[in-house]
This record gives sequence, structure tokens and C-alpha cells, in this order.
Amino acid sequence: MTTPPDNAVRLPLRPGLEGLTPYGAPQLAVPVLLNVNENPYPPSAGVVADIAAAVAEAAGGLNRYPDRDFPRLREELAAYLAAESGVELDPGQVWAANGSNEVMLHLLQAFGGPGRTVLSFAPTYSMYPEYARDTLTGWVAGRREEDFSLDVGHVRALIDEVRPAVVLLASPNNPTGTALDLATVEAVCEATLASGPAGPDGAPTASVVVVDEAYGEFRRAGTPSALTLLARYRHLAVSRTMSKAFGMAGLRLGYLAAAPELVEHLRVVRLPYHLSALTQAAALAALRHREELMGQVASLRAERDALVVWLRGQGLEVADSDANFVLFGRFDDRSAVWQGLLERGVLIREVGPDGWLRVSVGTPEETAAFRAALVEVLGR
Amino acid sequence: MTTPPDNAVRLPLRPGLEGLTPYGAPQLAVPVLLNVNENPYPPSAGVVADIAAAVAEAAGGLNRYPDRDFPRLREELAAYLAAESGVELDPGQVWAANGSNEVMLHLLQAFGGPGRTVLSFAPTYSMYPEYARDTLTGWVAGRREEDFSLDVGHVRALIDEVRPAVVLLASPNNPTGTALDLATVEAVCEATLASGPAGPDGAPTASVVVVDEAYGEFRRAGTPSALTLLARYRHLAVSRTMSKAFGMAGLRLGYLAAAPELVEHLRVVRLPYHLSALTQAAALAALRHREELMGQVASLRAERDALVVWLRGQGLEVADSDANFVLFGRFDDRSAVWQGLLERGVLIREVGPDGWLRVSVGTPEETAAFRAALVEVLGR
Repeated sequence: MTTPPDNAVRLPLRPGLEGLTPYGAPQLAVPVLLNVNENPYPPSAGVVADIAAAVAEAAGGLNRYPDRDFPRLREELAAYLAAESGVELDPGQVWAANGSNEVMLHLLQAFGGPGRTVLSFAPTYSMYPEYARDTLTGWVAGRREEDFSLDVGHVRALIDEVRPAVVLLASPNNPTGTALDLATVEAVCEATLASGPAGPDGAPTASVVVVDEAYGEFRRAGTPSALTLLARYRHLAVSRTMSKAFGMAGLRLGYLAAAPELVEHLRVVRLPYHLSALTQAAALAALRHREELMGQVASLRAERDALVVWLRGQGLEVADSDANFVLFGRFDDRSAVWQGLLERGVLIREVGPDGWLRVSVGTPEETAAFRAALVEVLGR
Repeated sequence: MTTPPDNAVRLPLRPGLEGLTPYGAPQLAVPVLLNVNENPYPPSAGVVADIAAAVAEAAGGLNRYPDRDFPRLREELAAYLAAESGVELDPGQVWAANGSNEVMLHLLQAFGGPGRTVLSFAPTYSMYPEYARDTLTGWVAGRREEDFSLDVGHVRALIDEVRPAVVLLASPNNPTGTALDLATVEAVCEATLASGPAGPDGAPTASVVVVDEAYGEFRRAGTPSALTLLARYRHLAVSRTMSKAFGMAGLRLGYLAAAPELVEHLRVVRLPYHLSALTQAAALAALRHREELMGQVASLRAERDALVVWLRGQGLEVADSDANFVLFGRFDDRSAVWQGLLERGVLIREVGPDGWLRVSVGTPEETAAFRAALVEVLGR
């Protein structure tokens, strides 16, 4: 299009967005992609065929709007969570959206907003402040300890001080990989029963506690899911995703479990028909194959544990990991290490506290390529 | 889940959402569905097969995140718009999201917000105030004339008074079906060059003018698209959808065209990876069949024009329609008419100004069923 120079106008960009660039890790064409914590295993031919068949069936009715409330998908997600965590849930306790991103947006649209605050603890997932920004919610980040755990005293003090509408905790945390023990989540739930903003009658409300378990399926044995606390805390929401353990990042299906009245509030702020008929059909097909898809979780866990041991054997500092990635360091010049790996065909992520780098757990071959490249880069 | 009565907490629902229920027309199982302006023609077996094949190919890589910027889809949407409206566009002028709903959300996230206002003209699409509510943007609705057209003097006066960040105009309008003539859109674009909120330096910005052409392909001959004004107005955005003319409501693919710098602001507020790999693949497949899919537009238009004539022949008042639906009335008790039709297996929509009802244009058989039922209900 030809753009005459004399038709320039100034767009009314919302204050706070000036000069910002879109969020996202570089999408580079590199042989070994270990930068965005994807599952390295593509779906099998059987899973692909079943997804295609389900989509073909749904496509025959694409001229119609999808079911706004996706009851079958909620039922199957509840059944999956019961199988995975042992926690029985009613489908009315389950919510889903286009990725955990949109689940979080719904949470902050319902419970955040101007004059309200989300409280989290850094270092943590770098999208969290963006969710706050997009919903005009204030953002306060407390600190994690040296080992990236939470000090409950510090958490309680900040809750009392900030009176957050939402407390947002990733477990396992990204980019550190560290999970919260259940006692910590329980303490946060107890501390937030009446710590939220005043309600319409002036009486205090709870802070909604969101435990983001995007990487929950990778947790080590003996670390229970926060789902086990749902029966006790009706201000708790536990979010999950099909992007990681299920190996379905391209599907964009995030979900959460919470008390039904909390889910009802999310229904009010969701855009109608937000989940397409194809997304619903493909997610249902993938859930039918959950045993096969989840079969890779055990091997990824083993691969991860071995990677942690190997990195420590190299004399590096490594955060405990309950996820499908490992945070390691520390480097005086982490950018140089990142660049050196990239030059050897291995893309990892420069993220987290100064001096640290994050690598996703790939296939054994990809992890071997990473190890070999790192040895070269570090000149060992 | 057992819910002990003593664990009730009060959730910190955002002020303004109290007592609200989720948006959406009743989803009822009725033989003749003429309530949500869907295209009555399901995709052909050939289109379904091509979508399934495209999805199967994409499904093989579902473990990876989708392309955040969907360049191929933007290119094909630009090519489609050029073919449909004669306006050549660069792919960087095109944006897409999960339905027009999400496109509008992005627009108001970028340009709306607290202290800012969206201006529209009622009666109009009932989701518009919800977009404003969800983005904490003020909502002001001016009025349409008796024939649902816009009085430019009234529009200008309100723009001067409100100084809106965004002016939102549906053309064809929902639920009235009436299109705006190009001179009106042009007048609005001229009136909004510096009518927006003050920028960071205190100087005025433009109001973003959004022309929602969700039903644009159904416009009558001689009504040009607002796309033809894009080269002149860089504060204009024209939105479209694949839900209606394309018959792909279940796919959830809305899009817009605007100046590239306007699109860049939308990229900042979008959630990363908002368009799934399956959505991108299926939309591209559907666009390859655009001639077949759009073939039904001509027959739906003819069916619509005949329905308008027939309704007027029944002595009813009928708004001019450039859409795939018709607003007709007026009834002292429109609920009774709606209910009477429902009892005869025909679901239409009780929406719009008092006394009016809206019916979607269906297949000839569906429209015949509607006519027969209406004759019975009105006792004629």
C-alpha cells in the first residue's frame, strides 16, 4: 500500500504500553531447540490419526458456533486430573481456555483490575507481569530464597502488607524448576482467607490463590499436587496445561480446577465461544490417548534428573528441578555461553536471575548435543 | 467433591461484575436454528477433507508452539480481502485472533482502558459494551435514526463531546442489518483525526475508528467496504470474520486490516501463541476453498432479499438488510411471537429495540419453515 506522508495521525495508545515490544522468545531455526520447554516427542502416528479423525468429524459442523461451555471437555479434563493426582473433581470445577495464558487472563479479569494487586515471588514466570499489565492490575513481586523456595514468614508479611486480590505461585516454578511443598501452599491458603480487597459491603474478601502447575506432571515422587487442597480452600485455583506433559503446545489448551463458584466468575468474563470446535475436538482426542502421551513423562523426568547430576558434576550450580527444564549457572557472562551454544546449533533460554541459564529437557540425543556443546563452550 | 459448610470464603470479584451472567443466546436443540446468524450450509466433503488433511499435517508437530505471528495466514487473508474488495493490503496490515471477539479485545486493550471511552451508536451489537467492560473502558452509545442510519451531525457532536479513544461502528450493523454508506464512514474518519485522548505530550491523538464488517460479504451491490478507505486513514481498522460468509463459526477466526503501526500495537497486547497451530492450518485450508465457500453468499443474499419482501408483504416493518439476517417487527409482545415460533421448532433471536425480532437467513427449507410458523403465530 502506498502511504502518503501527509496522512499521519497519532494513535491513542494506552498509557503504559509506549515503547513495549511483543513478548516471546526468539523463534529461530536451529537443530536443537531447548528454549521454550516443549515436549521433544511429537505425537505418534496413531494420535495424529485420531486427532485428524476427530477434527474431520467436527469440521462437518464448522458453520455452527461451538458449545460455549464445552461440557464434554470439562468432564474429560476432570477425569484426567483424577487419574493423575487422585483428586476427584466435578466438571463444574474445571475451566479451560486457549492456553494457560488465557486462563490467567480470565482470572485477572474476574478478580484483578485497577486498584488491585497480584502478588507473586521472583524469580518467576516472565508472563505474570504481562497478565497484570493487560488487566490493569498492580504487580508486586516478593523474593524467593537463595534455593528459590518461599519463606513463609516473608510471604505472610507481604500478604498482610499488599492485601492482594490474587496470589500467583508457580509450582514447579519457571524458570527455576523448583516445586513448592504442600505445607507452603497450605500456609498461603490459610494466610489469604480474608486478606483480599474489601467487598461491596466493606468486609474483607479472600485473596484468590493461583497455583500454576503448568509443569506439574513432571514433579518428583513425593511432591503432591495442590489439587489435593481444593476440597479445603474455595479461594484456591490450580492451573494446568496440555502444552507440556501432553506434548500439545501447538493445541493451546490450558485449564484449571477450582471451586464451582470461582469458575462461574470466569464464565462471566470469558469471550463467548472462546474455545473453537476444533480445539475441543482435538483436546478430547488427545485426552483419549493420555496413557501413551504421558508415557514420555517418566523418561523425561529420568533424563532431567540425569542432566542435573551431570551439570553438577561439571562443577556448575543447578537448581533442584521438578519440571522439564533445568536452571544452571552461574556465569559471569551468560550471554556469551548462550551465544556459544547457539553457534553449535543448540538454542536454550537466557532467562532468570543474572548469571543463570535455562535448558529444556529434550530427547537423549538433544540432551547429548547440549552437553557436548556446553563442554566445548566452557572449554572443559 | 464434598463441601464442608464451614470453608466458605468470599471471593474478591472485581467491582462491576456482581450479579452478571455469561453472555450468550440460548443454545437449544431445535430443528430450525435461525438465532445466531450462522451460515446454514455446512462445509462440503471436499472442504472437510482438506481441513482434516491440513490439521493432520499440523498435528504431527503439535508438541511445538505455533508461529506467534502466523505470516502465512496473514498473507492469505490479505489475498482474500484483495479479491473480495479490490483493496491491496500488505500482510503486515492484517491481524487475526480467536474470533472477532478477541480482535476487539486486542483493540480495546491497546487503545481503551480506564478514563477512556468507546463510542458507538445503538441499537448495535450487544457484545460491544462487554468488550468495554472487560477492558475497563467507558461506554457511550449515541443513537441511530428511525431507519437505523447514522446522522453525521449527531455523530460529530458526540465525538466532540466524548473525545473517544475508539469509535466502534458495525456495518452492516447487528441486529439491524443496515450498512453504513461510505460517505458516513469517511465523515467519521475526518472527524476523528485529533478527537482522541491527549497523548503523553498533551497533544491530542486520533480516535481509532473500528468498522466491524463481520457481515460485510453480504452487503448489497453498490455498497463498498470501508477497506477502500484504509489507504487514506491510518486510524481506521476494518474487522472481518470467517464465521459468517465463510461458514466457519466453529473455527473462531476473526481478523482485521489497518495501518501496520496500528497492528503493531495489537501485537504487544496479544497473549503469545494466541492462535493455535490447528486454527492456523484449518483457516489456511478453508481459505484455499474460498470460491466454493463464498458461492453460498450470493444465494443467501437472494434468499435474504426475498425474505425482506415477503415480510413486508405480511404488513410487517422490516429494516433494510445488507447482512444474512433480517430485523422485523413491530410486535406489542415480541416475546410471545418468539415463543410461538420456538414451539413450532423455529429458534430466532429476541434482540434489538423493543418490538423487533431478528431472524437469520437459512436454507430455503429453513426460511420456508420460519415463514409458515410465523403465519401461524400471527394468525394470518
